[in-house]
Parts: sequence; structure tokens; C-alpha cells
Amino acid sequence: MRAATLLSGIAILALAVSAGTASAKTPDRAKIAKVIADRHDATVKALQDWIAVPTIAAEKRNVNEGAEYMRKLALDAGFQQAKIIPTDGVPGVFATLDAGAKTTVGVYFMYDVKQYDPAEWSSPPLEARLVDRPGEGQTIVGRGAINQKGPEMTFLAAIKAIQASGKKLPVNLVLVAEGEEEVASTNFHQVVAVPEVRDALKKTVGVFIPESGQSKDGSANIVLGAKGAVEFQMVVGGETSDKYPKADVHSSNHARIENPAWRLVKALNTLVADDGHTPAIDGWFENVRPLTARQKQLIAEGAARNPEAQAKQSLGVGRWINDEPYVTSLERFFSQPTVNIQGLVSGYTGPQGKTVLPSRAEAKLEFRLVPAMTKEEAVTKLKAHLAKRGFDDVRVTVSGGYGPNESDENSLLVRAQKRFFTESNIPYSISPRSAGSWPGVVFTSAPLNLPASRFGTGRGAGAHAPNEWFLVKSSNPKVNGLDEGVMAFVDFLYTVADEAGRMR
Amino acid sequence: MRAATLLSGIAILALAVSAGTASAKTPDRAKIAKVIADRHDATVKALQDWIAVPTIAAEKRNVNEGAEYMRKLALDAGFQQAKIIPTDGVPGVFATLDAGAKTTVGVYFMYDVKQYDPAEWSSPPLEARLVDRPGEGQTIVGRGAINQKGPEMTFLAAIKAIQASGKKLPVNLVLVAEGEEEVASTNFHQVVAVPEVRDALKKTVGVFIPESGQSKDGSANIVLGAKGAVEFQMVVGGETSDKYPKADVHSSNHARIENPAWRLVKALNTLVADDGHTPAIDGWFENVRPLTARQKQLIAEGAARNPEAQAKQSLGVGRWINDEPYVTSLERFFSQPTVNIQGLVSGYTGPQGKTVLPSRAEAKLEFRLVPAMTKEEAVTKLKAHLAKRGFDDVRVTVSGGYGPNESDENSLLVRAQKRFFTESNIPYSISPRSAGSWPGVVFTSAPLNLPASRFGTGRGAGAHAPNEWFLVKSSNPKVNGLDEGVMAFVDFLYTVADEAGRMR
Repeated sequence: MRAATLLSGIAILALAVSAGTASAKTPDRAKIAKVIADRHDATVKALQDWIAVPTIAAEKRNVNEGAEYMRKLALDAGFQQAKIIPTDGVPGVFATLDAGAKTTVGVYFMYDVKQYDPAEWSSPPLEARLVDRPGEGQTIVGRGAINQKGPEMTFLAAIKAIQASGKKLPVNLVLVAEGEEEVASTNFHQVVAVPEVRDALKKTVGVFIPESGQSKDGSANIVLGAKGAVEFQMVVGGETSDKYPKADVHSSNHARIENPAWRLVKALNTLVADDGHTPAIDGWFENVRPLTARQKQLIAEGAARNPEAQAKQSLGVGRWINDEPYVTSLERFFSQPTVNIQGLVSGYTGPQGKTVLPSRAEAKLEFRLVPAMTKEEAVTKLKAHLAKRGFDDVRVTVSGGYGPNESDENSLLVRAQKRFFTESNIPYSISPRSAGSWPGVVFTSAPLNLPASRFGTGRGAGAHAPNEWFLVKSSNPKVNGLDEGVMAFVDFLYTVADEAGRMR
Repeated sequence: MRAATLLSGIAILALAVSAGTASAKTPDRAKIAKVIADRHDATVKALQDWIAVPTIAAEKRNVNEGAEYMRKLALDAGFQQAKIIPTDGVPGVFATLDAGAKTTVGVYFMYDVKQYDPAEWSSPPLEARLVDRPGEGQTIVGRGAINQKGPEMTFLAAIKAIQASGKKLPVNLVLVAEGEEEVASTNFHQVVAVPEVRDALKKTVGVFIPESGQSKDGSANIVLGAKGAVEFQMVVGGETSDKYPKADVHSSNHARIENPAWRLVKALNTLVADDGHTPAIDGWFENVRPLTARQKQLIAEGAARNPEAQAKQSLGVGRWINDEPYVTSLERFFSQPTVNIQGLVSGYTGPQGKTVLPSRAEAKLEFRLVPAMTKEEAVTKLKAHLAKRGFDDVRVTVSGGYGPNESDENSLLVRAQKRFFTESNIPYSISPRSAGSWPGVVFTSAPLNLPASRFGTGRGAGAHAPNEWFLVKSSNPKVNGLDEGVMAFVDFLYTVADEAGRMR
């Protein structure tokens, strides 16, 4: 009953959005489409070649090679200049394409990929083989296929196709790329802080990361922001204080020697309330903004699209926090900043027990941050909280992260997305916020204060997992394959230019 | 300064013990010694053969074979009857040797050994090779060599030697053996509870476990008891409540799904005070007996024998709990019951972090108990403590353990030990309690209420570690090798008989 009501709500919303729009009319569309089709094999080959050179920051693999590869891809796609921007970690890439247009669009790329274990794959992860996937069509299987090289190559193919058709782009482009996305973009803010890069980005109407985000039924989703994520580890033991042994000792010694695992428990215990989930770090909620009525509306609509029973089943749980109803749990999901324990490890971890007093205890934790919290604020508050309680022997190491991002639904970038989907007859929904994170905050925060979003059609899956895939030839007419996805980026750029004209 | 004073104290004590004693005069000692020497190779071979058949309860390895082997060893050593006693776990063995003597002595054997990884050994752990050890002499290297087959075989060789010399034993013997010592003697109390076994033990003056406990300088130690040890695990997660996911899920879900690691932290946090070591389980200290003046005296003497700097160095710590002075830390060590975390394991345990919400969190814990606490009391109090605080979703599994044991310094068994060491010119010290544990409580508690102790000369090391060894031919005249160790058990049995006569 509740689901049916909410589904009607969505239908109404889609109709409302559809009403006030008109086609952005990509010029010479048939000609561009032919160029895209003619270049199909070359585009596939270019994606395969890129997948063959994986940049993995955690393994310091192909770090400089990946940056140089990215730089050449940009130049090859028609950017007039592309340069490597050094950072304290993996270098970034900055490129510009001046088409003499009135509107400039920012594009964010990640050129790194997640680690992989070839033994878990059905085909070699760097070979990017073309594999038929039942119910989907022809796919490329390889590390980075969907996250994020496939969608990014699709975008590059779009701007190449416009130019190969003898036309100038309808917008100028500013590209910023990083090679540390998979290790929480530790140094990406340094790329954006370079005056030349910052000044170029300031001229954009916003920044988007290409994605291939259609569902199996062809529907798309506009996401208006993402929680921030900060990963950190808390370690206590012989390496942090001489109260604890340097190596595990016989457990009988706990009668006279402190146990770092207890100390860790005592420190952790102060971080969340006795309910086991509400963050209790001093001042934690100071800058947390409550959901707006519009956000609550979008969440209720989302609840209708994703039945509760299915959500519980896929997550393997029988209850939400506090036994709350589904919509309340989703409001929590999108609105609450969290302090999560990712892992605990100390002493003996095998079957049953072993008579040791551990020399070391570590908790792996993570913050999820919502507007208007910042990474710096969260880390500073954590450290002050622990210091105030005397936990000087608990070492906190922040291994990466960034704050939340949020973009206005009425910004040009989002309006253009809505209009594109409507004019392309692609049903779409709007989510107020993503549970997953990406470093859009470097664009949405000061000094840039730009909208930032994800955009693209097509489809794939298996990010971070074995057999990651990206759809090349779709067997479902409602879902875009590679060539249709390239055309969609072409249409989108013209839509952005046209929408900018309307708003001027 | 303190050390010098205390060392004088020890010298005075040794003199005092030495003063009132007279030799127990083992009859035909030279003849028995010759039998021992003649049987040397056979004794070594018997020990090697036994080591080749390891009983490992945790792996259910050689469980029935080990019991039968133990039964045959007893019969071979002259016990008139030996039988296997089934338990809910690994069977025990009960044997009696009636020599028509006035005094009956109980002997406890463990026939199981600790797990081992051959890759970590310099010679195969089951081959029990004879290896020269610089500074020690000829040793047998194998799993169980010192813990406890070497000392036990030495004792069996002693009673065989007396009989092979044409004599009756000066005492009757009651042997009880178990095959689960290394998994905390979970079922051994069932062996002792069998009426026939219990009645036989009731006739003894006490029970001892053979050991080879001489230090490198030849000195020995009498230990008047041991803390109890109870191992248990606390688990919370999808397997204990549908509040938690059945498998790890993406960490963003912690905003709407409970994290079992936090729940474990909250439960653990209640078990010790904020100082991170004082047990806080309701009623925990109710039955804890403070140290007596005599125990404190023995501890102070022990402190003098074992310099603080050396103790800290070998344990890899710079400080004791609360920065207490050494003697205070040792009083804690011997007097305080502990709740120790042996290990923590939950979710992601690799380098840095991983964005998961764990489906399971486990803490491995252990109690160390002092008189007059019992295992049942401790487990009952733990469960009541958690239940009172609503931790119904935290599963407690007790994987083994037993209470503390304590024996009177003036009991016949301990008096005989003191007299033996004095008459054998083996310097010795007395410790009020052992930090390590053994299931002597089954003898010292009701209904038996017997003294129970460890006794033996000779030497070895590496219990639970690779390259465990037992001294066969000693290069140090102050330290007994195998044959001298056999003779020491012979002398000890005559000393017990003689001391019993004196006390009658």
C-alpha cells in the first residue's frame, strides 16, 4: 500500500520534470552517430589498451606511467594542453579544451583502479576480453572496466566524435584527473589548489565524473551529493607506550602488565553512545544539517522504488537500527554521520583461545560525514576528544578521506541532466545523497563552490570485485551500449550548452 | 640494597630447612643406580617411542591410541591394573600399584601434547632426535619432550628401577592421566569423579605431576599452588541476532544497521574498570583471598632472586601496572584474578582500512582465578553480569578451564620435597603460586581436599614452542640428566615414605 502510493508519486514527478522541457537538438546528429559507429572498434581497442596499464596507488604500480597515459589520452581526445601535476602522492593531470564556447564544463577523471587477484577472475583482469553476458549483451571484462575507465573512455570518444565530424565542441572543457581515488584521494586537493587549475575550474558551470549508471531496466538516477568518508586506524601497544609489551607475552602477566586490547576497548567505548551507534565524539553534531523537506520527499520516493524486504534480504539483516520503519531507516542512512568499526585485530585470532597478552591492538574505523561537516573538523574533534580523556597512548593514523559534497538540484549541471534524461526518454529518479563516496568536495567546497555530480548512460558492474564488466553491445534496447553511451555524452554536452543559454 | 637483604633472607631460610632434616637413606642405592644406568638406552628409546605418538586433543589426533598407549606404559612400569576411563571428551587412564606400603602417593600424568608446526622445527618434532645443546648437554628434541613426556617417563623409569632391583616400592601409587591438558582439561574432573578413582585417590597423601624443573644453575623451585584459568569467547553478529548482517556489508550501511563490533566493545567495556585492568564483573572479588604474610615473604624473596630489570627486559615492558614498584607488581601477579583479552577479531584485518560493516565480532578472553574462586562461580557471574546489562545478543562460549589450586606448605607432600632438595644439596626456593596453570584443583578441592604439586629434577624448555627439548646427559654437574632425574624420583619416594613415618 505504502509502496504503491509512493510509486505514483514518482510517476507524477517524472511527468512534472518532462513537462517544461524541449529538445536540445544536437546538430548533424546522424553524421556524428556514423562517426561513432565507424570508430567503434577503435574505441574498444583504446579502452582495452588502457585497462592493460593499471595504476594502483596502494601498490605504487604504474603511478607515473598512468599519469603520462592519462595525459596522452587527453591530448589524443583533442585537449589543446594537458600536463602532469605533481602531488605529495600520485600525480594528477590537468587539461583544457578551448572550443571558443560561451560555457565551460569541468570533468573529473580517476585513472587508477582497485587492486585485484587474478586467481578470482574468470578471464585475465588486464586482458579486457570481450565476453557475452547473458541478459546484458557483449561486455568488456577487466579491472577498471566500469570503475572508471569504461565510462571515461566513452566520454573521450564523444568529444573525439564531435571533432571528427568537423565540428567544434558546444562547450569548453577543463579536465582534472587523479590516480589516488581508490586510496581515498589523499592528495587530490593539491591538484585543484594549483592556481592555474583552480582558475580554470572557476570558469566552469560545474564538474562531473563520467559514469555508466543505467539500471537493468534502463532507468537512471541523479544523485545530488555524497557523504564524505574518512578512514583511520587506532593502534595501541608496545609501539605506542612502554606500558605494553613489545611482543605477545604469556597471558598470566596481565595481572601486572597492561593489556593494549583493553585500552583500545576503553578508547573506542567513548566514541559512540551506549546504544552502539550514535557518535559520541565531543561536538560531533555541531555542523550536521538536518534533511530538507525535499530530501525527505526524495527518500520516500526511493523507498518506494526499493522494497524493504528486498533491501533487508540483500543486506542479510532482519531489522534496522532501533527497529525503525523503512523510511525512517533510509532517512538515517542519508542524513546521519557515522563512526564505523571496519575491523578489530589484536593478539590471537585463530580458533578458540590462546594464553597470550597481546602486544598490539588495532581498530580500523571510518567516519561518514554529511553536510556541512568537513574532514578536518572530524579529525580534529576526534583527536581532541581522545586527548581530553587522556588517551595519549592511542595512536590515530588517518589513512585517507574527504568531506561530503552536495549540489543544488537547480544548478545548471543538474538541470541539464534532468533535461537530457527526459528528452532521451530515459526514466530517472533523484537521490538526495549517495552512500558511496567520491571526492567531489574539492569542487563543491570553497574556493570553487561548484556543483559536482556523476553522469552517464550505459551499464556495468563489479567495481572492486572480480570480473568487473562494462557493457559494449547491449541486448536490451532500453539500456545503452558503448556507442549509444558515446552519443549520450554528445547530446549531454549540447544540452548543457543550450540550458546555459536559457539560463543566461 | 633491597636485593641483597632479601638474598640473605633466602640463605637463612634454606639453612633453617636444612637444619632439622636427616637423610631418608634409599636402600641399596648403588644397586638401583646401576639398574638405572643399565636401562638408560631403553628409557631413552621408550621416551622416543612415546613422542612418536602425539595425542593432540584440539586436532582429535591419537585420542584413543594415546589413552591405550598410556595404559600400557603404566602396566609396563609395574602398575597392577590400568584402565581407560571414558569422558565426554578424550578418555583418561586410571592405574594403581599396591606395594603393600603404609603410604599411598597420587601421581597425575598428561599424555597429550601441544600442537606444532614441523616447518618451525630444526629437527622433526616426532623423531625425538638426540641433539647436543651447547651449555646444557645431550638433549632429546621433540614435541612433548619437556611438557610432559620426558619428566613422566623419568618417573616411570624410577619405579621400574626399584622393582628391577628386586625391591618393592616404598609407597603405593595411584596414577590418573588425562589427554586434554592442553585444551584446559575440560573433562578431567569426570575421571576423578568415578567412584573407584575417587576412592583410590582418597587414600593418597597428595598428588604430584612429575616435572623437570631445575634452572640452569641447578636450583629448584617448590610451588605451592597455581591460579586457575578459564578460557572463553564472546561472539556477536549475524549468527547471534538479526540486528547484524549475515555477511560483511558496505560500511555506509552502519547509518541504518547495527555494527556487532561496537556491541562487542560495549559488552567488553563493562568487564573491567576504566583503568583497563581491574575486573568489574559483578561480585568478582567476593571470594578472593588476600595474600598471607608468609606468601608476601615468599614473593619478596622471589623478587630478590629475579632482578626487576631482567624481568622487564624479558617481558618487553618498561613499566608495571600503575607504575608500581617491583614487589608490589609481583604481589599483584600472584594475588590478583584477571580478565584478559587474548585476542580481538572482526571484519577487515589487513593493512589500513576497508569500507565494510563487519558481520561478526569476537573477543577471546581468559580469566585467571585465585583461591577461593571457582570456575563455576566465575562463569556464572560473567553470564549474570552480561544478562543484567541486556547483552542477550552476545554469545559466551566457555572453551575450557578450571579453578585455582593451593597446597599447604606443611603438608606431607611439600615437606618431603623440601627434605629431598635439602638432603640432595639442591638449592631451592618456594613460590606461593604459579602463574601458569594445571588442573590440580580436581585434587585440592572437595571431596578430595588433597595437596597437589609439581616435583622433579632435571631440565628442559620449549613447552608449546618449536624445538622443545629435554636434557638426557647434563654437562653441568649441578643439573640432573635423565639418569640422575630417575634416581631423584627414587630418592623422593623413599623420602615421602620416611617423612610419612615421622608424621605418623
